[in-house]
Amino acid sequence: MPKQVDHRERREAIAHALWRVVEQQGWPRATMREVAREADVSLGQLQHYFSSRASMLTFAMEFAAEQTSSRVTRNLAGLDQPPHARDVLRVVVTEMLPLHPEAHATSRMNAAYVLEALHDPELRVVARVGLREGRDKVEHLIREAMAGGQISTDRDPAIETDLILSLTGLTPLLELGVIEPEAALAAIDQHLDRLFSPGS
Amino acid sequence: MPKQVDHRERREAIAHALWRVVEQQGWPRATMREVAREADVSLGQLQHYFSSRASMLTFAMEFAAEQTSSRVTRNLAGLDQPPHARDVLRVVVTEMLPLHPEAHATSRMNAAYVLEALHDPELRVVARVGLREGRDKVEHLIREAMAGGQISTDRDPAIETDLILSLTGLTPLLELGVIEPEAALAAIDQHLDRLFSPGS
Repeated sequence: MPKQVDHRERREAIAHALWRVVEQQGWPRATMREVAREADVSLGQLQHYFSSRASMLTFAMEFAAEQTSSRVTRNLAGLDQPPHARDVLRVVVTEMLPLHPEAHATSRMNAAYVLEALHDPELRVVARVGLREGRDKVEHLIREAMAGGQISTDRDPAIETDLILSLTGLTPLLELGVIEPEAALAAIDQHLDRLFSPGS
Repeated sequence: MPKQVDHRERREAIAHALWRVVEQQGWPRATMREVAREADVSLGQLQHYFSSRASMLTFAMEFAAEQTSSRVTRNLAGLDQPPHARDVLRVVVTEMLPLHPEAHATSRMNAAYVLEALHDPELRVVARVGLREGRDKVEHLIREAMAGGQISTDRDPAIETDLILSLTGLTPLLELGVIEPEAALAAIDQHLDRLFSPGS
């Protein structure tokens, strides 16, 4: 199906253009017109691929989530098999943070989408479902590690899941250059060490 | 100096109008024109108080930080004196999260400002200084608690500071309704319990 493939490719190219606009000019400038200019297509062509700004933003956000997911999968393949639960969680968390250029783009896209979703019911549903699915995956990993004896069963899996996800709160510190990537990694490792310690 | 007081009051009223626009319509709509409409003043009057959109956003962000700070001070006054370091950190963290209407507005204002600051050098300096000052205050509290024997001196104060600040990463989970406020508080308490435990 070459036509469908082409359609998907064009949508991905537009999503990349949107990320660049968000990263370089900011969310308020991410209009259909500006994205068309950045993607080097006419506004009419852009509208052929996305009927509305909301559908364009949603595709770009979901594509960002897929890209993050692919990076996680790629990193996991490089670990000893089967990977230790601690290493899996470390990869998941670090790929959500803006620690390298590709993750920068997806992290900013995500932050902007959440902000926009707060006052747009359509985007809100999408953002909520995405975040809930991500949260479920992390909770599943933690429950498995508890069942496998790697995390103490004294822990509350729901609380530990929320604490793992809260590590994305290092993002503004990194983005504004208040801390260096090494400091973020040290904090993540400290948190994981405690989570996987047999004691408390 | 009634004239100066009036000037400050008008600027604060405009900042409140800006927060409402950000909260209800989103950051891209936070133009000088829209804020003037929301504040019920003419665009010319608004420009008398703020010469540019950047200066308006910066004042509104700094005013949001002051308001958060006042809420923290008010809450601390209600604690046993002198307050326990754990309770102080709990108040600091919970007031940064969108757990009640006033904190909603300041939290969103802050998230939007950080996002805008990423591609605006002028705002970036302001955001960076503000975040660094906030981080310094938290690190000071942690170092004091270590000196006072409330936190083990085995801990690394810089890492513990970053982990405390990362708890603001619960914001998207709360904003999108993926977790309830009770779950956020349980996660914060769990983290603080571990930080203040004599053992590890």
